[in-house]
Amino acid sequence: MSNYFGDLKKVVFEGTQSTNPLAFRHYDAKKVILGKTMAEHLRFSACYWHNFCWNGYDIFGAGTFDRPWQRPGNEMDMAKMKADAAFDLFTKLGVNYYSFHDIDVAPQGNSIKEYVENMKVMMDVLGKKQDETGMKLMWGTANAFSHARYMSGAGSNPDPEVFAYAATQVFTAMNATHALGGENYVLWGGREGYETLLNTDLRQEREQLGRFFQMVVEHKHKIGFKGTILIEPKPAEPTKHQYDYDTATVYGFLKQFGLENEIKVNIEVNHATLAGHSFHHEIATAISLGLFGSIDANRGDAQLGWDTDQFPNSVEEWTPVMHDILKAGGFTTGGLMFDTKLRRQSIDPIDFFHAHIGGMDTCALALEKAASLIESDELSKSIAKRYAGWSTDFGKDVLAGNFSLESLAKHAISKELDPKHVSGAQERLENVINRHIYG
Amino acid sequence: MSNYFGDLKKVVFEGTQSTNPLAFRHYDAKKVILGKTMAEHLRFSACYWHNFCWNGYDIFGAGTFDRPWQRPGNEMDMAKMKADAAFDLFTKLGVNYYSFHDIDVAPQGNSIKEYVENMKVMMDVLGKKQDETGMKLMWGTANAFSHARYMSGAGSNPDPEVFAYAATQVFTAMNATHALGGENYVLWGGREGYETLLNTDLRQEREQLGRFFQMVVEHKHKIGFKGTILIEPKPAEPTKHQYDYDTATVYGFLKQFGLENEIKVNIEVNHATLAGHSFHHEIATAISLGLFGSIDANRGDAQLGWDTDQFPNSVEEWTPVMHDILKAGGFTTGGLMFDTKLRRQSIDPIDFFHAHIGGMDTCALALEKAASLIESDELSKSIAKRYAGWSTDFGKDVLAGNFSLESLAKHAISKELDPKHVSGAQERLENVINRHIYG
Amino acid sequence: MSNYFGDLKKVVFEGTQSTNPLAFRHYDAKKVILGKTMAEHLRFSACYWHNFCWNGYDIFGAGTFDRPWQRPGNEMDMAKMKADAAFDLFTKLGVNYYSFHDIDVAPQGNSIKEYVENMKVMMDVLGKKQDETGMKLMWGTANAFSHARYMSGAGSNPDPEVFAYAATQVFTAMNATHALGGENYVLWGGREGYETLLNTDLRQEREQLGRFFQMVVEHKHKIGFKGTILIEPKPAEPTKHQYDYDTATVYGFLKQFGLENEIKVNIEVNHATLAGHSFHHEIATAISLGLFGSIDANRGDAQLGWDTDQFPNSVEEWTPVMHDILKAGGFTTGGLMFDTKLRRQSIDPIDFFHAHIGGMDTCALALEKAASLIESDELSKSIAKRYAGWSTDFGKDVLAGNFSLESLAKHAISKELDPKHVSGAQERLENVINRHIYG
Amino acid sequence: MSNYFGDLKKVVFEGTQSTNPLAFRHYDAKKVILGKTMAEHLRFSACYWHNFCWNGYDIFGAGTFDRPWQRPGNEMDMAKMKADAAFDLFTKLGVNYYSFHDIDVAPQGNSIKEYVENMKVMMDVLGKKQDETGMKLMWGTANAFSHARYMSGAGSNPDPEVFAYAATQVFTAMNATHALGGENYVLWGGREGYETLLNTDLRQEREQLGRFFQMVVEHKHKIGFKGTILIEPKPAEPTKHQYDYDTATVYGFLKQFGLENEIKVNIEVNHATLAGHSFHHEIATAISLGLFGSIDANRGDAQLGWDTDQFPNSVEEWTPVMHDILKAGGFTTGGLMFDTKLRRQSIDPIDFFHAHIGGMDTCALALEKAASLIESDELSKSIAKRYAGWSTDFGKDVLAGNFSLESLAKHAISKELDPKHVSGAQERLENVINRHIYG
Repeated sequence: MSNYFGDLKKVVFEGTQSTNPLAFRHYDAKKVILGKTMAEHLRFSACYWHNFCWNGYDIFGAGTFDRPWQRPGNEMDMAKMKADAAFDLFTKLGVNYYSFHDIDVAPQGNSIKEYVENMKVMMDVLGKKQDETGMKLMWGTANAFSHARYMSGAGSNPDPEVFAYAATQVFTAMNATHALGGENYVLWGGREGYETLLNTDLRQEREQLGRFFQMVVEHKHKIGFKGTILIEPKPAEPTKHQYDYDTATVYGFLKQFGLENEIKVNIEVNHATLAGHSFHHEIATAISLGLFGSIDANRGDAQLGWDTDQFPNSVEEWTPVMHDILKAGGFTTGGLMFDTKLRRQSIDPIDFFHAHIGGMDTCALALEKAASLIESDELSKSIAKRYAGWSTDFGKDVLAGNFSLESLAKHAISKELDPKHVSGAQERLENVINRHIYG
Repeated sequence: MSNYFGDLKKVVFEGTQSTNPLAFRHYDAKKVILGKTMAEHLRFSACYWHNFCWNGYDIFGAGTFDRPWQRPGNEMDMAKMKADAAFDLFTKLGVNYYSFHDIDVAPQGNSIKEYVENMKVMMDVLGKKQDETGMKLMWGTANAFSHARYMSGAGSNPDPEVFAYAATQVFTAMNATHALGGENYVLWGGREGYETLLNTDLRQEREQLGRFFQMVVEHKHKIGFKGTILIEPKPAEPTKHQYDYDTATVYGFLKQFGLENEIKVNIEVNHATLAGHSFHHEIATAISLGLFGSIDANRGDAQLGWDTDQFPNSVEEWTPVMHDILKAGGFTTGGLMFDTKLRRQSIDPIDFFHAHIGGMDTCALALEKAASLIESDELSKSIAKRYAGWSTDFGKDVLAGNFSLESLAKHAISKELDPKHVSGAQERLENVINRHIYG
Repeated sequence: MSNYFGDLKKVVFEGTQSTNPLAFRHYDAKKVILGKTMAEHLRFSACYWHNFCWNGYDIFGAGTFDRPWQRPGNEMDMAKMKADAAFDLFTKLGVNYYSFHDIDVAPQGNSIKEYVENMKVMMDVLGKKQDETGMKLMWGTANAFSHARYMSGAGSNPDPEVFAYAATQVFTAMNATHALGGENYVLWGGREGYETLLNTDLRQEREQLGRFFQMVVEHKHKIGFKGTILIEPKPAEPTKHQYDYDTATVYGFLKQFGLENEIKVNIEVNHATLAGHSFHHEIATAISLGLFGSIDANRGDAQLGWDTDQFPNSVEEWTPVMHDILKAGGFTTGGLMFDTKLRRQSIDPIDFFHAHIGGMDTCALALEKAASLIESDELSKSIAKRYAGWSTDFGKDVLAGNFSLESLAKHAISKELDPKHVSGAQERLENVINRHIYG
Repeated sequence: MSNYFGDLKKVVFEGTQSTNPLAFRHYDAKKVILGKTMAEHLRFSACYWHNFCWNGYDIFGAGTFDRPWQRPGNEMDMAKMKADAAFDLFTKLGVNYYSFHDIDVAPQGNSIKEYVENMKVMMDVLGKKQDETGMKLMWGTANAFSHARYMSGAGSNPDPEVFAYAATQVFTAMNATHALGGENYVLWGGREGYETLLNTDLRQEREQLGRFFQMVVEHKHKIGFKGTILIEPKPAEPTKHQYDYDTATVYGFLKQFGLENEIKVNIEVNHATLAGHSFHHEIATAISLGLFGSIDANRGDAQLGWDTDQFPNSVEEWTPVMHDILKAGGFTTGGLMFDTKLRRQSIDPIDFFHAHIGGMDTCALALEKAASLIESDELSKSIAKRYAGWSTDFGKDVLAGNFSLESLAKHAISKELDPKHVSGAQERLENVINRHIYG
């Protein structure tokens, strides 16, 4: 059994006066904010893959970490040692949830049958771990992008047998997620895109993906899974272009296949910014379209053009996001998943702790600042006032369809309308946010 | 009357042996390619605004051009002198179409009534010019973004009176377009977006825009306009974020408001690349969604983050695009509009000629190369072979919905599927393209 | 005389308990931090141009502001009204400095002689204003980029007469700056770059600019100006490429012309990010090269590819920067210049106040957080420990040049060196910063 | 011995009438252009690493290639099989040069001594291969970035023992390059940069690197190596920021350490564009600074923010670059190195051929087009005319330092200079280029 984190204790809340770098200074799981505890609001989840499957390699260099469960050895033994280490970390971090890909937890084996068999064994292991620790499953997913067979896509692959192989993994991973009490099931289209348009039939691949997602939704209902199906948008990487580019793109896709009430989005901070949007934009868009589901909390680097999956550390970035989430009612089945990677140079066991503590404290602080903003109602009032004209009879008539283009033009001409422009007051509103953040 | 281009002759085709920089070397309007003349394929349109309304100013400096119709003087006289110069240029360039915003051609006046009156006068002027020259109207549009009243949007403005003012302009411009035999009507959401989410109600603004577009479509049918309504996607600039971000985003919007069969897209090269896409991507996406309408041919600069609106000059960029357009049946009401700006340092009348000639020759060359590619059928055959598995019984069954996730998984397991990955051959296909381009 | 800001009072410090949006909550000019007052540390300067010369136009639309001094009228009268308004605002904001371009304050006239004459008159006006208000001049500069004559550059123009015209402006503006007690003189190469390499002789233009800067330095010494000459790097915009791209590029330029001890850099936040760097990077680089001079505090928008010149509002971005500046000894002649633009929709006089107050409070807060970090010495200690090996005899010998490549290789082989990699602890250090920011 | 490419024949030139995808259509090694053969102009080199050491993995997935020499086995045996395959490919492609990193060709072993020993053995192997095939070494380099010990840099590492280890590799690789008749030696600063400024001493790391490069130059002279030392600029990746960001940055660095006459740059197309520059910009800048050395011909993807290392396929991009290189006298020791990666989906042996043939034909075509442009002298004449004013007495006086700022201003005022702006004619010049490309 792994004793990788042996000396490190469970992280506890010590408050802002503490100088202990291994304690929470802001995340107090039981503290009540706007009627719910911090833990209920934030629903933190840690991930299996970056934490336990990655060894620190990048495209220019070998692994830098030395994890016992990644050393040579019997695959199933190593998978169990990894599970020990993972639940040890999850427990010590004080997250209530974890998330996995099928082949993070179970070796993919040398055949589809071995895969199914390995999953079966490991689901028992995980079930027991959950029972022992009280840890819950935020979401499961299938990795249908790492194996060479998926190099040209899974659901969108030109070969229907690859589609079928992916379906087998999703079937297995959905059933596992259901069995383990998972609260969501995620679809990330790692290779569902193209490398070059020259060899790609966009319409065909879209049809394939549409059918794939329909099958997933049908299966959900068939097995009685009550969780949420989530698509995780990303614009590119590993592919040149991914079909689930951003939230607005996913919305169009769901509308085409009649799935807009069945699937929501799992928004990743880093994916939002790679798509040319602010994180806030993607969250606000998802809420406005009724698609908001869950969050991968990892951020990118503003100067780099690839996924760096860094831990959240900006209260300034998160406060308006938290504000919008709270206004929209908060998370239901979703939560804040740390799809985060340690920096490749952060090689020590203790770095896991620094990183997660910093990320959790950041989100907790943003929750507090957002709650303060909600309570003041300053943003909402300001917005309501700005759009007040649409609550007049004239405004309502226009939106209700009581004017045609012609009748509205005639109205404007006859009334000699000459509307005056009104300050947008952006700087004032930015000061309001900072006042709530910096007290 | 303007004699601005007085010494410059109508541009004629002289062929590749010519060294005359003021002749076409590739664009031979009457040459037949795949059963249609080049003019019928390409449907070139020149624009009114950048050519005749812009004086070379940028955000760091004053105008550099000296256009007689931009000097101080009676507004309507200047508008007529501008029309003289414009039709003189259009005719000399040998384009068959032109395009305008309402206030490019008619002074906006000091009131809504003056605007309507000015438009009336200038529509007569333009009608006569069309009759005299044979020039046709590719599309009209309304400029609902330059006046200060539109600083916070037109259809998406927080003030319904601004919405009504914009409706008046669109009503007037649509009617003018219809009266002048225009073949399309364009909606570009210059300020239909946000500067900051802090003062913005995304759901409300989306509803407003949806209603606005519905009114436009209803009006089209009411007046019997047979042209196409086009939305021109752009991700940002002037606003931080525009709601018609890219083609995929517009698709979702149209689906929400039941307009996906009523409105198509006008894709601008420069807007595609600002949105983080290749031009080819936007065209291929529009075709795959059934939304392809027309093109603004102006490109950006690969290193700059704003609209530079340069003239097309890359046959390499345009050849695969032309290939896809030809495969999809070519333009119907749309065409190639030069929404292009001279470089601010290109201040001479002759620069108009260099710029348009270069752009038109580029598109003509790409048409020829694409036709060669079509005739060889190399790309299409290669794609068909790649997806052949989906034409087998198994592939058809999967797409037809004859498998559930479970039955497909069971099939995969029982058959012990182990699909092999097949080369995507990207480099080979890129060589095919270059072989057709470079003979 | 302008009474544009008539009702608005001088901004005072009220502390964090205040809810008055027109008071400082953090900037307490007289508060002592690390031995100097906040005012001495921060040396705030407001700008003339964006505040008083810009009318809210952008490339897609007309001005949105209504400033009395921008209405039609006698140019010199308007210039004086503008000066009244400017000094009224500067005084009310509580900045101690202002900055200007020559033609911000004096009309450029219709000839070089008119320009010189107008400058003479307005320097008297400004001198009196300074005396009346106690306002000081942070820096002057010459606008050699807005007039059409500069469309192809000033010092780098292909026409030596344009070079001479620019020299006249710089001569005049430097003398004016000196006469007004200015503490720096800035050179921003607005059009010192290229639009296309096809018409550009890079080596020639570089030689021209080198000579231009040498003349500036020689003139400085000749007139006994004690201030600092500053180059303001920017990668592009308005040109495609500017020769003073970033700090590292400027360093190479200065080294080539022997000016590295004569000229420093004025780093703009927005220019740093447009160049693909973090603001922190540009500051740290300038300090490491001995080039740090002054700061333009305006930021960009992370999603937009052009200068938005927004007011600073991120304490998180500014704290590590302030830390490095304090460690390096703080500003000498430089300071924090607000080369900031109101958002185009922020049209009210009060918006000037919201914007500057927010910006000044942001910098003041960052100063406090940075001072806390300095006092703890946590970052510096951590860095010193990381490089400790270079303070050993071996490390010193290597750096001192006591090893050749061969002798070092032989040393490594004979000692069988096998150095172990050590955690970079990035997340821990990020937590340290946040602990100082969020208390 | 590997027979990996067994069935594939040596590629020969067949001309543009050929439809054989495995023949050159444009690269005719012996064809004379402007007095030299194509082979002498282009000096093609293939690389060892991406072709033979990479297995198709990316950060999201496992290898997709099946190369016999990458299977499990005795390391030295595999290294020899790899060398067989490599020289087989190089020979069949008809390149005259190859390039390697030390540990591409020799296993790095488990200790510094094993490394040295393995290098010794493999240098003999390579020497024999060169003798047998006539293949020459374009350049060698040391991989001081892949091993975990280099995670925080090599020359810039906080640990001087890592510096010493890197020095050992560079010493060994330089000696090997010299022994094998290599014509250049390259330094690429893979990890010579930072991940976070929070743990970095920029000044210290710069000093270390400066000393490192001085040692390299001293060693070159000591051993009598006549080749060129080259630095390969790259802005980021794998690190957040690399110290050899771009050519202008390298220039400043070289000036600081007195190395500007000793070291030149190896410009990679993909690195240029990642740095926010056009490829043409980096080449023109290097030439203007006297730093032009060699080229890595691999391009990026315009929409992706990381190194894709694709094969060159744009004659349009390469023609002006070739023009400038020819004008500057062509390559001396440098050449066109294909630091190119097959696309991860291009898994077949034949894909190596498609990719290199396409790349080589692209460069050959660009050479022909550029020669045509050179012969016409159109660009050079146009530039000379544009700067003609600097050849007048007045222009020469200004550049020669015969004017002070004051005397030049007085001259301008007394002469009442009023220079007129002249068209930059960008579009005309772009047409010139296209005329030479498209005939």
